[in-house]
Amino acid sequence: MKIVLDGMGGDNAPRSIVEGAFMAINEYKDIEIIITGDKEKIEKELDDFKCDKSKISIVHTSQVIENEDKPVTAIRSKKDSSMVVALNLVKNKEADVIISAGSTGALLSGGIFILKRIKGISRPCICTCMPTITGGVTLLSDTGANVDCSVENLKDFAVMTDIYARNVLKIENPRVALANNGTEEGKGNSLVKDTYEELKNMPALNFIGNMEPREVLNGVCDIIICDGFVGNMILKTLEGTAISLFKVLKEAMMSSTKSKIGALMMKKDLYKVKSLLDYKEVGGSPFLGIEGGMIKAHGSSDARAIKNAIRQGIALQKGQVVENIKAYIENK
Amino acid sequence: MKIVLDGMGGDNAPRSIVEGAFMAINEYKDIEIIITGDKEKIEKELDDFKCDKSKISIVHTSQVIENEDKPVTAIRSKKDSSMVVALNLVKNKEADVIISAGSTGALLSGGIFILKRIKGISRPCICTCMPTITGGVTLLSDTGANVDCSVENLKDFAVMTDIYARNVLKIENPRVALANNGTEEGKGNSLVKDTYEELKNMPALNFIGNMEPREVLNGVCDIIICDGFVGNMILKTLEGTAISLFKVLKEAMMSSTKSKIGALMMKKDLYKVKSLLDYKEVGGSPFLGIEGGMIKAHGSSDARAIKNAIRQGIALQKGQVVENIKAYIENK
Repeated sequence: MKIVLDGMGGDNAPRSIVEGAFMAINEYKDIEIIITGDKEKIEKELDDFKCDKSKISIVHTSQVIENEDKPVTAIRSKKDSSMVVALNLVKNKEADVIISAGSTGALLSGGIFILKRIKGISRPCICTCMPTITGGVTLLSDTGANVDCSVENLKDFAVMTDIYARNVLKIENPRVALANNGTEEGKGNSLVKDTYEELKNMPALNFIGNMEPREVLNGVCDIIICDGFVGNMILKTLEGTAISLFKVLKEAMMSSTKSKIGALMMKKDLYKVKSLLDYKEVGGSPFLGIEGGMIKAHGSSDARAIKNAIRQGIALQKGQVVENIKAYIENK
Repeated sequence: MKIVLDGMGGDNAPRSIVEGAFMAINEYKDIEIIITGDKEKIEKELDDFKCDKSKISIVHTSQVIENEDKPVTAIRSKKDSSMVVALNLVKNKEADVIISAGSTGALLSGGIFILKRIKGISRPCICTCMPTITGGVTLLSDTGANVDCSVENLKDFAVMTDIYARNVLKIENPRVALANNGTEEGKGNSLVKDTYEELKNMPALNFIGNMEPREVLNGVCDIIICDGFVGNMILKTLEGTAISLFKVLKEAMMSSTKSKIGALMMKKDLYKVKSLLDYKEVGGSPFLGIEGGMIKAHGSSDARAIKNAIRQGIALQKGQVVENIKAYIENK
């Protein structure tokens, strides 16, 4: 299996990309890695690591897509950027999966314009794997690919995320819920109400009804469906709340000598709590509905996050998500 | 000033309502309290407390609106419920402010059908006071009164919440932000994009642009504007994340002897963290845009939460929010 890494995408590129590739090569068998980007810089980083370098190749590119760039314009004008070249490698079947920690908008535009949308899917979605306090994950789709959605879009997100959960996460009968402001049937805005009516009539889905985001970390369902604007709000509120709480917790621990000693004694168990919600362990977010494997890694990914995104890319490919989505559409 | 309490609303009614009234009477001067509900039950609870009982009166009612009741139907059919009778007391100027921990939907319907919408306001909103980690509050409007919104609605929420922040919270020039999936101008769904264009052209508002909910607890703005569906998602994700994190934290503290001792040493400082996000301290959520003072207290309010909702009701009345909203409309 061939994985292509956007070597210049993300806050810590190319260092964390190269180190993540090195970790993955040592940990996962039967993979080859291609890194796109500034050859000189990448080779310099690679020198620091000992691994089977025959398994890592570099494709030199001269441009970089920045977060500030307008997504569509960047994809069209920066033909020799690390991201566009990586996407073309997938398009030309020279790689199976692309992993990028670069601009989400650009990657999505690139997916749509270069790899193309799967025929029969109204819109692709970003599916985010959120860790739960029960030790599992809940998938949230869409988390930002589509800020204005139709019922048709939400139905497609549900089907594609269900396929991902079954084939990649190996969840037997994924519980699909709709993000809503109440659990009772009939709750929600007009989009959510109409989507509820459709989802409950889809026998292929194990639709369990509405879910209030109060439960978002409790593992009460495997999949949460919502439009990309709402999904983005849920995700960012969750991240923000966790970061802010850990911040005040840390301040509290340092606020007196007694607390400092107490915190030291609790260190190991406190670390477990923090690592429970660690996105670096989860990997990245697959883009579903595109002709090819795509994983968006967190912008601030370190080497471990990149390694886990590669692990996820391997699972995405092995789970034949694209093929399974196509098979679903054909049999609809 | 006369405050009427819905004596049967909320999980801990009438006990917490009566005890909250008792605490308020002892703490705040120049107020009288009316409690609506089952006279026998309320009198029995009142017997437990020592306060100036000439300041508390009971209006007997025979019905209770339950959370399961359909809001509009309940308001129309349960004419002798503690909530409807309390609303009529405000309507007939026998009380200035109503405080209820009962069904949010019913209270909102009651506000609209009994007290009526302020003329010139397209829709009322629920304004939730969220504590921040900087020790202040951020107001989030709307958090559930309107699940499908227009630009006009969001503009009204911004104006009314601004008036509340200035006159009740005494914030001089409240920073108004729009909840969005990115900070740059041009981000968001079509509703948010169009609202942005309107808000930036309202000289009366100190509009500071978009805010990602990653910042929701950091006190970076005083007011966050969004539609009621999105606001409800933000609020419930925030609450859910905080509750889930405190749960795993507690488990971590109890997971080893060493951690137990450590936690004991940190107790005082940990308590500070927990109390920082304590909704019971904040009070309740004012309903803005209704002809009369209305505060929705949390359904699980204890006596302290009710007392703080009463404190908030006093401030709402003293801040002349209804009058100030009307003055704004007249001068528009």
